[in-house]
Amino acid sequence: MLVDLRSDTVTRPTAAMRQAMFDAEVGDDVYGEDPTVNRLQAAAAALLGHEAGLFAPSGSMTNQIGIQLLVAPGEELLLDSESHILAHEVGAAAVIGGISTRSWSSGGGRLDVSVVSESVHESLAYHTVATRAIAVENTHNRGGGTVIDIDQLRRLRALADERGLLLHMDGARLWNAHVASGVPLAEYGRLFDTVSLCFSKGLGAPVGSVLVADAERIERARSIRKRMGGGMRQAGFLAAAANYALDHHINRLADDHVRARRLAEALEPYGVTTAAGVETNIVLLRHPELGKLSAAAAEQGVLISVLGRDQGRLLTHLDISDDGVDHALTVLTGLLR
Amino acid sequence: MLVDLRSDTVTRPTAAMRQAMFDAEVGDDVYGEDPTVNRLQAAAAALLGHEAGLFAPSGSMTNQIGIQLLVAPGEELLLDSESHILAHEVGAAAVIGGISTRSWSSGGGRLDVSVVSESVHESLAYHTVATRAIAVENTHNRGGGTVIDIDQLRRLRALADERGLLLHMDGARLWNAHVASGVPLAEYGRLFDTVSLCFSKGLGAPVGSVLVADAERIERARSIRKRMGGGMRQAGFLAAAANYALDHHINRLADDHVRARRLAEALEPYGVTTAAGVETNIVLLRHPELGKLSAAAAEQGVLISVLGRDQGRLLTHLDISDDGVDHALTVLTGLLR
Amino acid sequence: MLVDLRSDTVTRPTAAMRQAMFDAEVGDDVYGEDPTVNRLQAAAAALLGHEAGLFAPSGSMTNQIGIQLLVAPGEELLLDSESHILAHEVGAAAVIGGISTRSWSSGGGRLDVSVVSESVHESLAYHTVATRAIAVENTHNRGGGTVIDIDQLRRLRALADERGLLLHMDGARLWNAHVASGVPLAEYGRLFDTVSLCFSKGLGAPVGSVLVADAERIERARSIRKRMGGGMRQAGFLAAAANYALDHHINRLADDHVRARRLAEALEPYGVTTAAGVETNIVLLRHPELGKLSAAAAEQGVLISVLGRDQGRLLTHLDISDDGVDHALTVLTGLLR
Amino acid sequence: MLVDLRSDTVTRPTAAMRQAMFDAEVGDDVYGEDPTVNRLQAAAAALLGHEAGLFAPSGSMTNQIGIQLLVAPGEELLLDSESHILAHEVGAAAVIGGISTRSWSSGGGRLDVSVVSESVHESLAYHTVATRAIAVENTHNRGGGTVIDIDQLRRLRALADERGLLLHMDGARLWNAHVASGVPLAEYGRLFDTVSLCFSKGLGAPVGSVLVADAERIERARSIRKRMGGGMRQAGFLAAAANYALDHHINRLADDHVRARRLAEALEPYGVTTAAGVETNIVLLRHPELGKLSAAAAEQGVLISVLGRDQGRLLTHLDISDDGVDHALTVLTGLLR
Repeated sequence: MLVDLRSDTVTRPTAAMRQAMFDAEVGDDVYGEDPTVNRLQAAAAALLGHEAGLFAPSGSMTNQIGIQLLVAPGEELLLDSESHILAHEVGAAAVIGGISTRSWSSGGGRLDVSVVSESVHESLAYHTVATRAIAVENTHNRGGGTVIDIDQLRRLRALADERGLLLHMDGARLWNAHVASGVPLAEYGRLFDTVSLCFSKGLGAPVGSVLVADAERIERARSIRKRMGGGMRQAGFLAAAANYALDHHINRLADDHVRARRLAEALEPYGVTTAAGVETNIVLLRHPELGKLSAAAAEQGVLISVLGRDQGRLLTHLDISDDGVDHALTVLTGLLR
Repeated sequence: MLVDLRSDTVTRPTAAMRQAMFDAEVGDDVYGEDPTVNRLQAAAAALLGHEAGLFAPSGSMTNQIGIQLLVAPGEELLLDSESHILAHEVGAAAVIGGISTRSWSSGGGRLDVSVVSESVHESLAYHTVATRAIAVENTHNRGGGTVIDIDQLRRLRALADERGLLLHMDGARLWNAHVASGVPLAEYGRLFDTVSLCFSKGLGAPVGSVLVADAERIERARSIRKRMGGGMRQAGFLAAAANYALDHHINRLADDHVRARRLAEALEPYGVTTAAGVETNIVLLRHPELGKLSAAAAEQGVLISVLGRDQGRLLTHLDISDDGVDHALTVLTGLLR
Repeated sequence: MLVDLRSDTVTRPTAAMRQAMFDAEVGDDVYGEDPTVNRLQAAAAALLGHEAGLFAPSGSMTNQIGIQLLVAPGEELLLDSESHILAHEVGAAAVIGGISTRSWSSGGGRLDVSVVSESVHESLAYHTVATRAIAVENTHNRGGGTVIDIDQLRRLRALADERGLLLHMDGARLWNAHVASGVPLAEYGRLFDTVSLCFSKGLGAPVGSVLVADAERIERARSIRKRMGGGMRQAGFLAAAANYALDHHINRLADDHVRARRLAEALEPYGVTTAAGVETNIVLLRHPELGKLSAAAAEQGVLISVLGRDQGRLLTHLDISDDGVDHALTVLTGLLR
Repeated sequence: MLVDLRSDTVTRPTAAMRQAMFDAEVGDDVYGEDPTVNRLQAAAAALLGHEAGLFAPSGSMTNQIGIQLLVAPGEELLLDSESHILAHEVGAAAVIGGISTRSWSSGGGRLDVSVVSESVHESLAYHTVATRAIAVENTHNRGGGTVIDIDQLRRLRALADERGLLLHMDGARLWNAHVASGVPLAEYGRLFDTVSLCFSKGLGAPVGSVLVADAERIERARSIRKRMGGGMRQAGFLAAAANYALDHHINRLADDHVRARRLAEALEPYGVTTAAGVETNIVLLRHPELGKLSAAAAEQGVLISVLGRDQGRLLTHLDISDDGVDHALTVLTGLLR
């Protein structure tokens, strides 16, 4: 038995999702003519309460398109120091967007708008770099699947409006935040100028992400996507899986959250995690020799992710059953004992 | 009857190709674990005589990765002034790669190495920008599907070796060149340091491209692909179609070439094209009011591509049958008469 | 009487410095043939204990060249969230260098290496952006002329050596740190891989900065300087003033520090500053209507700098005498009363 | 006797120019308060018939600011394949501006607007890179000091207006074109949206260049200059020399042109140059072993510039007298005999 807890990106499509892909009606999406892609883009936009959407091959690409739409080269994007955009996108904001990034020190991915407010730079003096936009990530990956409090997000919108700033949400796992908090997706969506959504994480689709925004921004986004090499032709096969996931895989994320909590509770006695911190499908690990732990677990069919010398994580997802959790706990507690 | 001659990218998968996608075994390709992607990468590398390959969502992305592997920011890439890299990739070489591009005046996409040789800048004087690499496109899109002469390519390699330069081939339609010229793919491949190949044009796959190079470069390419947002998860569904195309769709390109020639010969009397210039699957059109011509043809179900006020093109491909050519000629000659 | 406390960049050369400029022997520095520039570069390198130096028109340029030497496009530079490089250089690190910047929350410009250590990202997992270099600013401009503790700098070097990181110092006002702390310049210099030094701030020269590093890096720096447009011809006129400043204006900075302290002590009772925080020549101001205060003071010949809606600063320098301080205090306390 | 014919940038200020520098009234130009810089900027703008000017440390910087004002990242600049912007500015257009450059094959620096017109790319089809601006260089350095014909420039302006394009002139040696052709500077100026002018070449000032444009563009230019590190403080010392040069050194360029022609006529019999091609102060050389020739001449006090294995050049300037020409010819003809 292989239990792959490294990431929620490793899922393979279910038989039904695979059938939906097989049945997809497709066209040339570079010309905007793929009906399945168009249906997905419209559905995602509607869910988030935005005018339009654009499909792209990865959440990194929709994040980067989103921030490029809001921040011109040489302007500043303010964000959490442990955000995916800074830590996992290979410097794309600087290299591709020429975007100057400045960060506030992360507190486990939680958002404290009073800290953000103190960090904003205004454009009063000569030649300072003024903050142009703020990005938040919900749920917060490196923070351990943290759900950003909706009241903080509302305060963030108010701050942005007061200071003339724009807001991007990295919503790769916004589905998990929505299910955990009960806050409607559209309620999140209306607070942000651009939102990226990912279908190949908890939702279980093989490939793809959608950026939602207003129609004018999405029109400009097409050009940025092409420059980044994200213009795909008959992408409807991928979009069909995402459409299926929207229809069938959102609510079941609650099961992943329960399983993650169960993993954390069982591991907490070994001092490697804190169950109270598990809000969605991510369990952070601290262990002095995480590389060794990971290698030993792998030999027994349990794969965990190594994030640093003493940091790791477990993620639950569509392909992790209760049996899988049982097996993982047997192996891990055996090794930790 | 709809005859879509705008591009060879508009093809929809055949039933057999669709079945191959349905049956694909997949994994998380960001971790390098998708067996179908791995098979495609190995197959493409083997065909071209290179060590390794990397799958990406578009030919634009593999072109851009290829030239970024060869040319550092601030260095120079020399290429044809009508190349796809300069005309159709939204300035990516400059924006993403910081690559300084200089071009020789195109002669219908043909390569004259003596012209290229004159254009190379050496690094003898203070602070000049030395040419670092040269890119060629084969077949040449804007030149009208021109096949680059293999002897010129050999001379180009000799020039590169003598001057210490590197070579990239935009081989989005190298399949067509191979079929038209009879030159083995590996013979083309061994002359270049990086080659991009596309599966969603003449080969008829829905999405995807592979870059081939040596193993060290492909390792670096993984990082560039991630930065550009091209890291996909279960990409094997797309790769399965490409694998199918490699096995079944290369030789049939000869049919497309015959059909393109037939189109050109029938249109030549109207002064809008020159049949002698048609070497593969592209027919260039010149007409004083190409926009109007295009609109009128579309009303009768024949779609053609507009490239400029008086320039357009027709492309034959997997979805254009002999009947389609007949219909297109009936409509176009009717309008041109 | 005009008392310009906006910045230490507003100084005009003394008669002796102007004479040194007049007498300068010059050559074409793009060819490396200006003897006065060469003397300055060698002198600055020697003072800091580095192999070589490079003259440039501004401290922003030497900072940007320094970090580009250490950090490749897409790699990460870690620095204080209120650093000059992030706040006052118009996004150059991202736009020109493609450098991904991440910051720790500033504590008045003070350096706490344990905070920095927590912020470093390692390169263990897939596709993370690894921290490549750290920059510190000494004295720290927005922190209010803070002198970075030499013990923290030694700990920073140890951290860098342990983690394989490189270090840049923005030493635009390192002269002030040296005079205030008594730490030799070479002691600061040996802890950093690149150091930028500025002559047009406290030292009173009209224009110019020098970057010091090892000889190989300075050779590369010449090319980056040319790309940024910093290649000047007979720059010896500017270097002559800097040479004069090195010989005559370092030790006198102690007077500026005394005057800044006197300003702060007199203003502290009005709640607009804290004298204990004044370590060198900068006095930070907090006032609810700083724009109005600045405008009113200007009418009476006292110029102060506005940094934000409620933030400002005063700087002492070569052109601020004891009489100037008296006048400024008369005007400012009159307005604050 | 040393006769330095490598470049017109090697001149040292005359005694009178040096005195003008000594007497300069200066201020902090980053705040826009240097009266001598302001006078220079206004004078240059007036001469070219533009609204405003901006001083910068080099002609490379004013070129780069100029084209960045006209062309956004990802847009296209069309220019001569042998232009200074492409060959001598270390890739700045791509690295800093993200500007996609495409070039027409140079014909000795001459401008043929019908060739340019053919090269323009329009924005009719999907995702093409549309040409946004065209740059020309007058006189043309690598072309051998070629004066661009004013009628061609007028046709270029008409083409630009018809196609919605913008125009930049690299006028580093526009002074020479003006003197050689008799065309007023303002006549050149009115045809271009941005013009860069250099004072440290034929005009004999030590350092500096001015960009002229409309007031809105110059306002934006201040920010770009700061990003590039070109913000200087008491730059009036440099501007004073440039002001002096404007008043005294323009008309005397005719002497340089006569001397260059004399050099070329005397060398023509040796097959190394063509006197008919010498229009201003540059003489191109072709010789199979130019490096050896250069080294041998240097031993006898005659310095010439090496541009490639078999290419070199001689430039006359303020520090080359008739005696200098005599000496250079004695040495060079001795070596060539």
